[in-house]
Amino acid sequence: MAEIRLNAFDMNCVSHQASGLWRHPRDRSAAYRTLGYWTDLARLLERGLFDGLFLADVLGVYDVYGGDPRAALRNAAQVPVNDPAMLVPAMAAATAHLGFGLTCTLSYEHPYPFARRMSTLDHLTDGRIGWNIVTGYLNSAAKGAGKGGQAAYDTRYEIADEYMQVVYRLWEESWQDGAILRDVERGIFIDPDRVHRIVHDGAHFSLDAIHLCEPSAQRTPMLYQAGASTRGRDFASRHAECVFLASPSADIVAGGIADLRRRARALGRHDGDPLIFSLLTIVTGRTDAEAQAKWEDYRRYVSLEGALTLLSGWTGIDFSRYAPDDPVRHIRNDAIHSAVDALTVQDPKKAWTVRELAEHAAIGGMGTTIVGGPERIADLLEDRVVRTGVDGFNLAYAVTPESFGDVVDLIVPVLQRRGIYKRAYRPGTLREKVFGRGDRLGNDHPGSRVRCRATEEMP
Amino acid sequence: MAEIRLNAFDMNCVSHQASGLWRHPRDRSAAYRTLGYWTDLARLLERGLFDGLFLADVLGVYDVYGGDPRAALRNAAQVPVNDPAMLVPAMAAATAHLGFGLTCTLSYEHPYPFARRMSTLDHLTDGRIGWNIVTGYLNSAAKGAGKGGQAAYDTRYEIADEYMQVVYRLWEESWQDGAILRDVERGIFIDPDRVHRIVHDGAHFSLDAIHLCEPSAQRTPMLYQAGASTRGRDFASRHAECVFLASPSADIVAGGIADLRRRARALGRHDGDPLIFSLLTIVTGRTDAEAQAKWEDYRRYVSLEGALTLLSGWTGIDFSRYAPDDPVRHIRNDAIHSAVDALTVQDPKKAWTVRELAEHAAIGGMGTTIVGGPERIADLLEDRVVRTGVDGFNLAYAVTPESFGDVVDLIVPVLQRRGIYKRAYRPGTLREKVFGRGDRLGNDHPGSRVRCRATEEMP
Repeated sequence: MAEIRLNAFDMNCVSHQASGLWRHPRDRSAAYRTLGYWTDLARLLERGLFDGLFLADVLGVYDVYGGDPRAALRNAAQVPVNDPAMLVPAMAAATAHLGFGLTCTLSYEHPYPFARRMSTLDHLTDGRIGWNIVTGYLNSAAKGAGKGGQAAYDTRYEIADEYMQVVYRLWEESWQDGAILRDVERGIFIDPDRVHRIVHDGAHFSLDAIHLCEPSAQRTPMLYQAGASTRGRDFASRHAECVFLASPSADIVAGGIADLRRRARALGRHDGDPLIFSLLTIVTGRTDAEAQAKWEDYRRYVSLEGALTLLSGWTGIDFSRYAPDDPVRHIRNDAIHSAVDALTVQDPKKAWTVRELAEHAAIGGMGTTIVGGPERIADLLEDRVVRTGVDGFNLAYAVTPESFGDVVDLIVPVLQRRGIYKRAYRPGTLREKVFGRGDRLGNDHPGSRVRCRATEEMP
Repeated sequence: MAEIRLNAFDMNCVSHQASGLWRHPRDRSAAYRTLGYWTDLARLLERGLFDGLFLADVLGVYDVYGGDPRAALRNAAQVPVNDPAMLVPAMAAATAHLGFGLTCTLSYEHPYPFARRMSTLDHLTDGRIGWNIVTGYLNSAAKGAGKGGQAAYDTRYEIADEYMQVVYRLWEESWQDGAILRDVERGIFIDPDRVHRIVHDGAHFSLDAIHLCEPSAQRTPMLYQAGASTRGRDFASRHAECVFLASPSADIVAGGIADLRRRARALGRHDGDPLIFSLLTIVTGRTDAEAQAKWEDYRRYVSLEGALTLLSGWTGIDFSRYAPDDPVRHIRNDAIHSAVDALTVQDPKKAWTVRELAEHAAIGGMGTTIVGGPERIADLLEDRVVRTGVDGFNLAYAVTPESFGDVVDLIVPVLQRRGIYKRAYRPGTLREKVFGRGDRLGNDHPGSRVRCRATEEMP
């Protein structure tokens, strides 16, 4: 078996996907506003040889439940939510190897300043930055940014495709290798002949500029995506180097992986790409009994209203209109169906109620939660890899940083002993660490095609 | 005499305003891409009890000289230029008191995500963030962001005024004091009745959202502005808490300060506000002779082409069209006139040439450069404060971090001995440290007027 990869999954907010667990006496998530929370977490994850910290984000509030943000506010359900990019430089200064997968929506910022921000982060982290490409799912974000609502789903992906073309050109085409001369004798820092103006005049964006940053170690940040729909998988199979899947069902994860890899192969992508991480929450202790007791303790702090608030935002269904004991199968909505299907696959005979859905999602969101001592957890991870073909896991927390500390202290040593977890980081950038094929986008990746194609002469 | 205040003036690029001095063997500015350069600098400045590090920025290239960016590239004249915001979190983690004055243009980002970014920085720095409000001056920035060119000068300030109204409402009005309950017993993190939706539908921006961040220590970041024109001074007298003036002439600085304070008083602002910092470069050594030798050494590395490239961008004049010995007084342009006037005030009989203008600007830009041993520098600083009414200085570097280290090690102790420089930081936020009147915007400031005016009921 190949080595299992681990990312931590967190967000610049309180209790991320663990609804109500900010009340747990050991939870530190309300300290998200402080640098210390993040630098401590980064050091912990690096001690556990995690590939990266994956940072979620939304630019709006969860106001589908009850039609307003009151329930989200009461429960601190991903509101307040601070900018995740600002966490990276301080964590990078506190670590040497940990990668950072930053969620940034492309719906509300022009590619020109965005590309500069990501290049800056790639410079400051020595090539440890990744970008989780999202188009957003909250209408409240569009209203915040001065739009009536989000663009239609397919249009969002059309915009995203064009956005990617522009940022690839800025990152890969604008500055040729060797442009930085730093020639003290002749007094020439940059060779102007190797810096190319990018002119783009498309349906959604236009730009006439050179990229403002000299090439960073990775140039294009490592690209993550979480595409569940057909259109999303199509996008991911072209652009993503790593894909994040959130489903509680191993069968659904396995199907999604097979489909993604088939699509990527058809596009000429490298065999085995993209790598797939699935969402998982691990509750563990020194023994199975201790883990079970911890799980029962955590569950005492769950907020069902908080969980339904998040579920309403994810699915577009206002769950405040249903009673807790209503069966979910009567609720008609494509999004909820995929969520419900995923749950019911686990126990197909059961008639899931709204309350049971909330109880499931209250810790770990739409992923799976597994409970047990170290050997049992290691068995479950191995089994999941075998059954689904997943390459690793994005680990959400129940209580932070305790959930991550437990994995680092109890699970990682067992996986290492079994020979399925690294004992040291590989040198190099995030992309080199994860793929071992160099710092830059592979030649099979569509983003590489614009390289050295100097279409516009200067000026 | 009141205490003299010092800020450092730097930019996320090579050699900032010291054209060609990246070639100096002791200059480290090409390390701007690394966290170490910035965390070392921040610790140095904090050791010298600087109020803050003022970070300049442009979102375009200097392409007026010769009509293209080739000269800017050859000389690394503020290109490449990375995002300055990303530097702050790492420097904040390395310090406890130093403030950060971040230049962000409001021309290319909607106020909603921008307000979140600044609140995030205010949280992570424990209230040490300032914002230098700029509208930009480079057409190349507008073209990069997909616009044909910049808005007209007056329109830019009209847009800026509306932008300020929106961000004040997000920072000051959306979350009432006391909204964060963190009530473990009742399971209520935030009181929804104290969080207010901001609805704005203006000529340039619209928004319908709550601010995404809980209140930070300062709420509104400390506001800096550099307004030289009449319209700019009008804006600064309303919004700025600190103003940055760049002129080599003490008389011009004195006139600008008197005008600004008169305007601010007429608007009911606190007596003595805004504080004024003027641009200055200090070249010093243990003795006058050592300082003079250092100055002569620095000048050997100056690039006149680099200086003219920056001057062309600042004034809009393409200096490549003139010979080095052409007298500047024949060049007709309002912007160049104010620059030339400022210089010629220093030596009114002289017929300044293009070369002399470039030589003047090559170290320290449009500010003054003073050269001497510690006592002489202290005398010159005192004299300048007396003659102009300035509150302090934004210190540019010739060679970095050497120029800053020289001030910390040689000048600060002399000022302290004279009783005109602090011996310790005051506790609290940047605003409290600088003004001593609390963490929040004063009640005399227009940004405070939206407080607790809950115009929109939730939902």
